[in-house]
Amino acid sequence: MDLERTPLLTDLYELTMLQTYYEHGMTGEAVFELFFRAAPHRGFFVAAGLEQALDWLTGLRFGDEELAWMRDSGHFSAEFVERMAGFRFTGEVRALPEGTVFFAEEPVLQITAPLPEGQLVESRLMNIVHYQTLIATKAARCRLAAGDRRVVDFGMRRAHGGEAGLWAGRACHLAGFEATATCLASARYGVPATGTMAHAFILAHDDEAEAFERFARSHPHNVVLLIDTYDVEAGARKVVEVARRLRPEGIPVRGVRIDSGDLAAHARKVRRILDAGGLQETRILVSGGLDEHRIARLVADGAPIDGFGVGSQVDTSADVPFLDSAYKLHEFSGRARGKRSEGKTDLPGRKQVFREQDADGRWRGDTIGLADESLPGEALLAPVMQGGERVDPGGEGSLERARAHCADGLRRLPEAQRALKPKADYPVSLSPALRALREQVAGGAAG
Amino acid sequence: MDLERTPLLTDLYELTMLQTYYEHGMTGEAVFELFFRAAPHRGFFVAAGLEQALDWLTGLRFGDEELAWMRDSGHFSAEFVERMAGFRFTGEVRALPEGTVFFAEEPVLQITAPLPEGQLVESRLMNIVHYQTLIATKAARCRLAAGDRRVVDFGMRRAHGGEAGLWAGRACHLAGFEATATCLASARYGVPATGTMAHAFILAHDDEAEAFERFARSHPHNVVLLIDTYDVEAGARKVVEVARRLRPEGIPVRGVRIDSGDLAAHARKVRRILDAGGLQETRILVSGGLDEHRIARLVADGAPIDGFGVGSQVDTSADVPFLDSAYKLHEFSGRARGKRSEGKTDLPGRKQVFREQDADGRWRGDTIGLADESLPGEALLAPVMQGGERVDPGGEGSLERARAHCADGLRRLPEAQRALKPKADYPVSLSPALRALREQVAGGAAG
Repeated sequence: MDLERTPLLTDLYELTMLQTYYEHGMTGEAVFELFFRAAPHRGFFVAAGLEQALDWLTGLRFGDEELAWMRDSGHFSAEFVERMAGFRFTGEVRALPEGTVFFAEEPVLQITAPLPEGQLVESRLMNIVHYQTLIATKAARCRLAAGDRRVVDFGMRRAHGGEAGLWAGRACHLAGFEATATCLASARYGVPATGTMAHAFILAHDDEAEAFERFARSHPHNVVLLIDTYDVEAGARKVVEVARRLRPEGIPVRGVRIDSGDLAAHARKVRRILDAGGLQETRILVSGGLDEHRIARLVADGAPIDGFGVGSQVDTSADVPFLDSAYKLHEFSGRARGKRSEGKTDLPGRKQVFREQDADGRWRGDTIGLADESLPGEALLAPVMQGGERVDPGGEGSLERARAHCADGLRRLPEAQRALKPKADYPVSLSPALRALREQVAGGAAG
Repeated sequence: MDLERTPLLTDLYELTMLQTYYEHGMTGEAVFELFFRAAPHRGFFVAAGLEQALDWLTGLRFGDEELAWMRDSGHFSAEFVERMAGFRFTGEVRALPEGTVFFAEEPVLQITAPLPEGQLVESRLMNIVHYQTLIATKAARCRLAAGDRRVVDFGMRRAHGGEAGLWAGRACHLAGFEATATCLASARYGVPATGTMAHAFILAHDDEAEAFERFARSHPHNVVLLIDTYDVEAGARKVVEVARRLRPEGIPVRGVRIDSGDLAAHARKVRRILDAGGLQETRILVSGGLDEHRIARLVADGAPIDGFGVGSQVDTSADVPFLDSAYKLHEFSGRARGKRSEGKTDLPGRKQVFREQDADGRWRGDTIGLADESLPGEALLAPVMQGGERVDPGGEGSLERARAHCADGLRRLPEAQRALKPKADYPVSLSPALRALREQVAGGAAG
């Protein structure tokens, strides 16, 4: 079974519920919405993962292996298993375009489909959209903190499994990173690939300068040397010597990387050594435990750093390793629905998000309304799938479009939410019609 | 390219370094070790992921698509790309058996192979072993907190991508969870699958009792009902009514689930309602934001809870979302190697871990020594791959063996490290020979 495509990458209850729905002919039209509740330390979210979500929906099939497992599991009736052989997703999807900057309670994805189809896809759609949104959001914060300096993703090894490593490379690029170290993210999505060398490379040589020189001759167009295996400043001086030997061959040393110690202090000393050695063009890249706050401090400190390599902190969104995502039934058979118990309130009905902006293009506030309302501002949820087919084929160019859309959003976002420590919630209001519907549903007499 | 098998799920630098190694004939024998540095809030680690690591090593090939990307990327020489077409992993692996309880600085995996082979596999081996070890460790803490109550994994939707969701189900079971909601973890690894129903199922019905009854008749052997969609106690009373109607048909209500609010208070009230309704055998399962600390409080409180469903907190190891894992070159061409710069110290050489125990089987302490030393205690690293072939074919039964091994380890672990807030570091010492080697390498004259 293909991990990336199999419908068995789901929670058992989706399938057991489906059997009951089919037994009782509960195949009327349902509207499910995927949204995020407010998160600590996050002034905004960046929507990501829609491409993979739509690909997954398009290819959703129960193959022989899936059906065999269902048959043998003892959880399902023979009739139900038989029926699932012909299962297809035939619904409609509306979504925030990838790269959209959005806020708590706003639907990111809206599925309109026969109840069993909308139900079955819950677990995997959440799994896809939650992670990429989590990482794009974290990466956007790093992007903002780094200003015009370069930021690249080095995090695959400590990302949570292979798909996370792959998608982190994509989500970081979508949010503004220049490149990723992860080859597969480059091969699949066209994210520029980058990298330097590991300490092992230096250790495998008897002499640090020899290691530098060999690497440079082997990769003359991309010489970035790791200088902290033994002593950072001594390493920088060796870079100067090596650069001198490489100059006649036309091989420039494009950069050095420092991966440990006091990065600002090291960068200053290394900058002086490189400049004194005629390597004013050689850039300084730093890495090692970086997140948006450490990046912001290094930038504020004026450290002569040209680029940041970030890893585990970003690929796991370490300060907020998951968001309070939800995928809820908000309408079924023409009636608005919503969970009504304590602690968790829900916005029922099929919704739309309207965004208003100032004359200068800065956002003023959003209104969540019902899908059939006409409210001031731009309607953000757009149709992306109809009758189970993609409206736009996606693929080629879609990541770069999402990246540009995100960059535009980060420019229009008010300062209070752009701040690493958000100063206020972005204004999101509910339309009177939505408020009325919520009260009606909360009163138990859904409309 | 198959996400689970492709060698391009790696960092670019692994490949650029390889080209240089080959160009200079640096193909001598290298020893790399994967280990974890001390982590906050963790008194021990549980080794997991070895099965997937060995499978990946066994199938490591550069296919046409991988080679085409390498050719087009501009990062590599034609000769190197050509060479990689024939690349195989031919090395030896020694490892802690899956399920082994271990401690900081102890090698979990030791790769002995020609330098390029040992280097290339770094990123993905870390990615595989780090995540599963992270989750098995977190899950073991939940297992210890829950005592003899049932614990199950519900976390796939907020795990970081699909592979994390899949592997979390496996790692949690390895660490002692009874079951997972993730079907694919059941289909692939034989982890028992479990589940109840979503709020959407209840909301899709006009009447809560009708939803319960339909589900029960549809799944008569596994009736576990979600009772907090509207009002928990009212839900429990409906369960009693429904159970009365189902009794003549021989359908028992095996459990109820509460997913919100004050779980202990709800459980007490629900227990009284169920008991008064003759449902003494009906179990109470709770879920919603649970981790080992909340489980421990609910247990200490004496709440009448029979099982815990855990999700995001465990599948992301939310309090410690990554561990300080490392994969380091410790020997090359017969010489011990180790990084010597500030802040990060390394134990050079090819090592072994020796564990001593008391007469009653409790562990007394470990010694990290050199692989060719004979020290008191059990040697923990065992050969698992030779000449690129698995020593033991793995597969069938391997997860259950690892699970039993972990349970045994958790019993033998001293109280100070079993505690959710560890009271002391487990005693791990270095053999005199290892200490001498470290000083020699730190002095710059590697032996």
